[in-house]
Amino acid sequence: MPTTNPYDDDKLREECGVFGIFGHHDAAAHTALGLHALQHRGQEAAGLVTFDGEQFQAHRALGEVGEIFSKQEVMKELTGHAAIGHVRYSTSGGTLVRNIQPLFADMEFGGFAIAHNGNLTNARSLRRALVKRGSLFQSTTDTETIIHLMATSIRTNLTGRLIDALLQVEGAYSVVAICDDQVIGIRDPYGVRPLVLGKLGSAYLLASESCALDIIGAEFVRDVEPGEVVVLNRGGVHSLRPFPQKSSRFCVFEYIYFARPDSVVDGIDVYSTRKAIGRHLAQENAVEADLVVPVPDSGVPGAIGYAEEANLPFELGIIRNHYVGRTFIEPTDQIRHFGVRLKHNPNRALIEGKRLVLVDDSIVRGTTSRKIVEMMRLAGAKEVHMRIASPPTTHSCFYGIDTPEKEKLLAHQMTVDEMCSHIGADSLAFLSIEGLYRAMGLPGRDDKKPGYCDACFTGDYPLSLTDHEDNESGQLSLLAELG
Amino acid sequence: MPTTNPYDDDKLREECGVFGIFGHHDAAAHTALGLHALQHRGQEAAGLVTFDGEQFQAHRALGEVGEIFSKQEVMKELTGHAAIGHVRYSTSGGTLVRNIQPLFADMEFGGFAIAHNGNLTNARSLRRALVKRGSLFQSTTDTETIIHLMATSIRTNLTGRLIDALLQVEGAYSVVAICDDQVIGIRDPYGVRPLVLGKLGSAYLLASESCALDIIGAEFVRDVEPGEVVVLNRGGVHSLRPFPQKSSRFCVFEYIYFARPDSVVDGIDVYSTRKAIGRHLAQENAVEADLVVPVPDSGVPGAIGYAEEANLPFELGIIRNHYVGRTFIEPTDQIRHFGVRLKHNPNRALIEGKRLVLVDDSIVRGTTSRKIVEMMRLAGAKEVHMRIASPPTTHSCFYGIDTPEKEKLLAHQMTVDEMCSHIGADSLAFLSIEGLYRAMGLPGRDDKKPGYCDACFTGDYPLSLTDHEDNESGQLSLLAELG
Amino acid sequence: MPTTNPYDDDKLREECGVFGIFGHHDAAAHTALGLHALQHRGQEAAGLVTFDGEQFQAHRALGEVGEIFSKQEVMKELTGHAAIGHVRYSTSGGTLVRNIQPLFADMEFGGFAIAHNGNLTNARSLRRALVKRGSLFQSTTDTETIIHLMATSIRTNLTGRLIDALLQVEGAYSVVAICDDQVIGIRDPYGVRPLVLGKLGSAYLLASESCALDIIGAEFVRDVEPGEVVVLNRGGVHSLRPFPQKSSRFCVFEYIYFARPDSVVDGIDVYSTRKAIGRHLAQENAVEADLVVPVPDSGVPGAIGYAEEANLPFELGIIRNHYVGRTFIEPTDQIRHFGVRLKHNPNRALIEGKRLVLVDDSIVRGTTSRKIVEMMRLAGAKEVHMRIASPPTTHSCFYGIDTPEKEKLLAHQMTVDEMCSHIGADSLAFLSIEGLYRAMGLPGRDDKKPGYCDACFTGDYPLSLTDHEDNESGQLSLLAELG
Amino acid sequence: MPTTNPYDDDKLREECGVFGIFGHHDAAAHTALGLHALQHRGQEAAGLVTFDGEQFQAHRALGEVGEIFSKQEVMKELTGHAAIGHVRYSTSGGTLVRNIQPLFADMEFGGFAIAHNGNLTNARSLRRALVKRGSLFQSTTDTETIIHLMATSIRTNLTGRLIDALLQVEGAYSVVAICDDQVIGIRDPYGVRPLVLGKLGSAYLLASESCALDIIGAEFVRDVEPGEVVVLNRGGVHSLRPFPQKSSRFCVFEYIYFARPDSVVDGIDVYSTRKAIGRHLAQENAVEADLVVPVPDSGVPGAIGYAEEANLPFELGIIRNHYVGRTFIEPTDQIRHFGVRLKHNPNRALIEGKRLVLVDDSIVRGTTSRKIVEMMRLAGAKEVHMRIASPPTTHSCFYGIDTPEKEKLLAHQMTVDEMCSHIGADSLAFLSIEGLYRAMGLPGRDDKKPGYCDACFTGDYPLSLTDHEDNESGQLSLLAELG
Repeated sequence: MPTTNPYDDDKLREECGVFGIFGHHDAAAHTALGLHALQHRGQEAAGLVTFDGEQFQAHRALGEVGEIFSKQEVMKELTGHAAIGHVRYSTSGGTLVRNIQPLFADMEFGGFAIAHNGNLTNARSLRRALVKRGSLFQSTTDTETIIHLMATSIRTNLTGRLIDALLQVEGAYSVVAICDDQVIGIRDPYGVRPLVLGKLGSAYLLASESCALDIIGAEFVRDVEPGEVVVLNRGGVHSLRPFPQKSSRFCVFEYIYFARPDSVVDGIDVYSTRKAIGRHLAQENAVEADLVVPVPDSGVPGAIGYAEEANLPFELGIIRNHYVGRTFIEPTDQIRHFGVRLKHNPNRALIEGKRLVLVDDSIVRGTTSRKIVEMMRLAGAKEVHMRIASPPTTHSCFYGIDTPEKEKLLAHQMTVDEMCSHIGADSLAFLSIEGLYRAMGLPGRDDKKPGYCDACFTGDYPLSLTDHEDNESGQLSLLAELG
Repeated sequence: MPTTNPYDDDKLREECGVFGIFGHHDAAAHTALGLHALQHRGQEAAGLVTFDGEQFQAHRALGEVGEIFSKQEVMKELTGHAAIGHVRYSTSGGTLVRNIQPLFADMEFGGFAIAHNGNLTNARSLRRALVKRGSLFQSTTDTETIIHLMATSIRTNLTGRLIDALLQVEGAYSVVAICDDQVIGIRDPYGVRPLVLGKLGSAYLLASESCALDIIGAEFVRDVEPGEVVVLNRGGVHSLRPFPQKSSRFCVFEYIYFARPDSVVDGIDVYSTRKAIGRHLAQENAVEADLVVPVPDSGVPGAIGYAEEANLPFELGIIRNHYVGRTFIEPTDQIRHFGVRLKHNPNRALIEGKRLVLVDDSIVRGTTSRKIVEMMRLAGAKEVHMRIASPPTTHSCFYGIDTPEKEKLLAHQMTVDEMCSHIGADSLAFLSIEGLYRAMGLPGRDDKKPGYCDACFTGDYPLSLTDHEDNESGQLSLLAELG
Repeated sequence: MPTTNPYDDDKLREECGVFGIFGHHDAAAHTALGLHALQHRGQEAAGLVTFDGEQFQAHRALGEVGEIFSKQEVMKELTGHAAIGHVRYSTSGGTLVRNIQPLFADMEFGGFAIAHNGNLTNARSLRRALVKRGSLFQSTTDTETIIHLMATSIRTNLTGRLIDALLQVEGAYSVVAICDDQVIGIRDPYGVRPLVLGKLGSAYLLASESCALDIIGAEFVRDVEPGEVVVLNRGGVHSLRPFPQKSSRFCVFEYIYFARPDSVVDGIDVYSTRKAIGRHLAQENAVEADLVVPVPDSGVPGAIGYAEEANLPFELGIIRNHYVGRTFIEPTDQIRHFGVRLKHNPNRALIEGKRLVLVDDSIVRGTTSRKIVEMMRLAGAKEVHMRIASPPTTHSCFYGIDTPEKEKLLAHQMTVDEMCSHIGADSLAFLSIEGLYRAMGLPGRDDKKPGYCDACFTGDYPLSLTDHEDNESGQLSLLAELG
Repeated sequence: MPTTNPYDDDKLREECGVFGIFGHHDAAAHTALGLHALQHRGQEAAGLVTFDGEQFQAHRALGEVGEIFSKQEVMKELTGHAAIGHVRYSTSGGTLVRNIQPLFADMEFGGFAIAHNGNLTNARSLRRALVKRGSLFQSTTDTETIIHLMATSIRTNLTGRLIDALLQVEGAYSVVAICDDQVIGIRDPYGVRPLVLGKLGSAYLLASESCALDIIGAEFVRDVEPGEVVVLNRGGVHSLRPFPQKSSRFCVFEYIYFARPDSVVDGIDVYSTRKAIGRHLAQENAVEADLVVPVPDSGVPGAIGYAEEANLPFELGIIRNHYVGRTFIEPTDQIRHFGVRLKHNPNRALIEGKRLVLVDDSIVRGTTSRKIVEMMRLAGAKEVHMRIASPPTTHSCFYGIDTPEKEKLLAHQMTVDEMCSHIGADSLAFLSIEGLYRAMGLPGRDDKKPGYCDACFTGDYPLSLTDHEDNESGQLSLLAELG
């Protein structure tokens, strides 16, 4: 959902999705369709770069994929057999056109385009060093750091320079790039963000999630592995492993909320995992009730699992209005408290006099939870038991997810009891961290080698946080630019 | 869904929703919110007229409610304590700004604004007579006929003229109007289209569905009755009954598809009715299967009811992409067959090797059904049993719903067996007409006095079809106008 | 110049220009070019209606002709061998799309389109009577009155109905219309507004000024005569004279300011007339000076004539910036007094220390004159003698020209001496009314039969002012509409 | 005039205008007004950067100054006491937003913004060297070279780095920049492009032409001298002279066509110079005729001078339509030959039967001249004598003016006699190069030290043409980008 809607700000947000294809005569259209399937990973802007063997073509704009790439005059310019694309959500006022990816640079040995999902944790330190030596940054994205590191590398081919650059950065990244007439896909050594490999006829593809393969009828081949560099070119697919090996730490929140339920990421089916989470939630936190009601849409699979396990009816007690768009009626003070109803309406006839289990995927600031509980009570619910299909979110993410500062996370400020009373529920329960790992099919959390990044629940950050620990000013540019 | 999306054309479409309010200082903002809740009844255009005791203010535009009424400079002009609004879907190229409602006219005794849900079945005949006498039509809507009948009435107040006009028209209508410093709501004598009365503080409201009351926190008072004229003014609510009494024939398809599941229309809760339909569907057409899968979003409540009755798991086997918007990537030939996937993606991990019951609300042309069955098979479903939560749609609607000509309705062309083979399912079954009435809580269909309009299933048209039987040319204007 | 520019409001404004063509396969493109040549007669909106023998096509929009008709997708829809067009400047907030001409109506005997230059002086009275009988007005233009009079006429062909209607209206009008597969041009019996007839191959044309014939290489045939109805159809050109004969009163201000200098209107060449005016101005009001400087652009021909007669150098002492457009930098208070310089800059090097004769075509409110005199002094002029190439404008126009109310006309409020001191000039002189007639080639003004309408200088209004003398409210619609 | 108008392509085009101000609380609004006065130097795009002591603010867009800077929400963001601005015309498809100036960079010692009028003749060679060392270019403008040279300089303050950079570039430039809380103005050592210094209260200003000082009521102080660096800061105005001294070669074409007639540039009044050129043209090329007619608008001052000297009447024989805008009716084949009439119309009544002297400022390709001569003949001119107020344009400019390649210049292809017959005139004559220098007030051209750059007439290029002589590919970027 778009950032300008004031009633939808209570979720963590995936910041990006990427897509790449090599060896298809209609590379741009397939990339546009792939980005459309990944739209949930970033709704603010999208871009696409193609390569025809000699020249690169680009189109980048604010807006949704369907708007940006629906015009024939745009698509017919995007010629070539190779393409990469990006959807983006940005965290702050920095909605600058020059920040829209893929980024592009003319380098000594040719052109280079890159699109990035994730977040570099030492980008600011590297930027300072690069500026000192004469590099000029044009965007405020961390991704541009990679390009300048490449430009100043002494290696004599672009792929080598790219690996050179990535050996210097820290953080989480799944990257797609075009250079030297090939499309390259890279996942960081911990494999924090997803990246899958697909095949369509003789063409190979890369995408953040498998749903982007489905939309174009491509076949899922395998996940790109943590620390793997996959090169797609006229010779097919090649694999390099230039990074020191690490133990994998895939983002567990992709299963809880970010990924689409019809995707398979990092080898596991998202929808079934969400249902399993719902079942474990019911086992851990049973309550007497009449109905299980999901907070739509993200709470639905968890609620189905919960209802099955608890043997309670699953019912659509809250109806979501899908017409909530980019802009809406500016709320005057007197109508502001109806805000949440722009998106959600209680199914009054169903709810009245009932004891409800409300299932949501997570609580961030708690603002929406509070409004929804109140809405259920006004609609006549007798009891409202809130069940959250993840552990309490107590820490910020620095690996590519937009989270509020730790201080604004409700679970950082309060105990579960305090949270329950804050949101006005009759009871509130979260899935335990052990329960989460069990829902993932593991016996529990192995604290030495947990297998997933769960830092938002545990504070156990697998990758160093160089910039975060750096006390220097965070302002990346002295320039504020309109439009 | 907007008309320009080529992949979503296989549903009947409600053509309009209306809203009215009298006696609130913030009438325009409340009307905009009400229209937002009614957006599913018309996505092409919206309009709003307010009255401040002396002057009328209007704003009408193509687009969704949230876009049109999100700007402060628009809202601040829409002053007054009375307002009516309209959302509209139009059937053909006639997307003219001058057709957007509410329509307005300066008449001898003051200004008059009107918004209309439904369809007049003798509008063309009346228009011909009015043109002959010197009336000039500016739009091509049937609604304008009402205004000219009023203008040429000899009654000396506008309310009287409005009733005079409505006594001459045939067809289905729920109308809201402003004149003589009052807001008027009228439902045709058969009550084909819905209209409810609500209350917010001391203000009274009218809306097509109760969900438009919920969004602004208004209280549901009652349905406006068939043939009733409700007048909202400084004296409160008054009721007139100028029409000869008829037996009610509310549109049964409102329960099947048009109305929002969280609405209560004509006294009955939509969501529960849909679930009941699903249960009757399961009783009538049982099949051995592993999963019940809804075609989202309209098939969901029926599928929940079916699953409960059949004691099968309810699962989200098809994921809907809610980012499908007004425009999309123009499909080149090679990618056209992926069209349906822009909106729907199979949940492959769930489906593979399973026997599915697919539940949809209706089949119109059958194009989407066919693609979805094929998609399920490609995703590995072992068997696909299609169950439709309504009887076969064999006849066109002339009462305010956009239906294809009878010849294009799949159920008009084929038997159920032929349809099954056409869409490629292992089995296909529809709810019986008797089952539909039972799901409505009746013992069955009383053929003499059925209680609902079910002409699209039975061909039993309760209201005369004057224009339809008229052989003269259908062109309403010699003028073709761009944008 | 557009209405939103706050620095250009000190001129009278022609309200419309019209164009028509019959018998050309590319009627729309020629009409668009003709309207472009008439753009100075109305910059706010433009419209074009074509007829292909069966159907009418229309496109109307706010903006300049070049913008509105530059797109191929627009032009290719405007098919047919007959077309009429209109450019429009409107006086007030009434910038409504529904007011843009040509207006169109479906009548009993076919379609009818009309475009009108001028102003009907009894439109409001007629409108009241028509509304009483049931006619519904959709615009607030006086032109719509003509259409309703036609609709309610008992004649059985449209041309007859049009003449019927015009026999009932009072005021000034030059009209072009399409009906019955012909293009009709009409000039009111006094011939207040211009209309010329042209020929291009076998096609005939009508235009407000001859410059619209030149742009498409058409030949000037003759002026349409006062009270003449010219019918262009497959049979060629026909002429009717249904009105009682009057003595001609063509608008003399067309020669002073409105018409383009390269036009010939009502038989007389505009540029030469403006130069002759300048010469008579010099004869009547000689002054010792160094330079003659025009206020650009309208003062230029008069200044050339003045300079020749006075034997003084003609110099561009004021440079006009032609980039002043539809919008400009909103003037904060501190820079508001530089306003006039957005459009005019003194040619300082030329002016310094000189005695100037400034020549302008007229003074309306006097605001610009005052600023220009001040600007000349700041640039170092030793003396500034203002000479106006028309008599003092003391009365409002009701015949199709936008003038301020009489009370706001500087010449209504002050004597010439007072005006001189108000604008800060060393001397100020106007052309006399006798001088004006002499410049037109007449011996002087014949007060009984002046030959021109000069009401703005003399108050001698040739046509009745029914609406103006009517005391009823002037509001034409109870509806205020955005956009 | 905008580049998309196909009928206006027969002039050389100034590529840029610059403006700067330091020490005014309303720096942005004054810069916007200054840019408006310089709009004739570039109509394609405009930009403005302000500095408030800590942060830079920028707004850059395609379009005219009046559109871009007319919105309050734009202007209120552009805070600060220092500002620079730029208007731009670009030669080719390279209408990229990222090419719009002022350019900005975050450097080691702070932010830096720059706007540039002129053209660097070794930019491509420098770019290649910088890319080799790791610099990444984001635009395709030569101006960005300056910024990268600064970034890689070893000097420790930005002003020093800027001078360092300029010592390495060759070509013509007048630059304004902001860094270190000062506004800097620089003119290249030959002073090819203009730059003037002004004063408004305690604030100092820089502008391409003096007309930009007039519009805001600022006082002209002096020209910035060739090779001078002017620093405006809290201490007032300071002057540096870091470059080796050269003899001045100001662009003589600024007097012929580029500069506004009301400007004084490089110490000389433009309007008087144009009139003097007209007088010398008359002396050198007398002809028997009835009228002197300017090709508007650029031929007007020359025609006035010619008419005075030849003692012939000066008359507006061609009327220019100022509504020719950014777009126009796409000319179908049959109407293409009317193209020139969109802009120019003959004043037929004046011309018929007359012998004309047509005065234009220059002939580039000759396309417009040919059409205008033909138009005069069709309007009935008896003889058409073309007189050009400059010598034949035989060479391209590489110093900031958009000229066709030499091969397309009519005077490069033909003798004057051939040109005369090509354009269809009765006679054709150009001002001699000696006559041009005499009109500038000199005794004639001093071939050793001409004092002006007249390379377009003589091929005597004062500055080296490094890039032009370089045979490497001219493509500056492998990336083609839409919008």
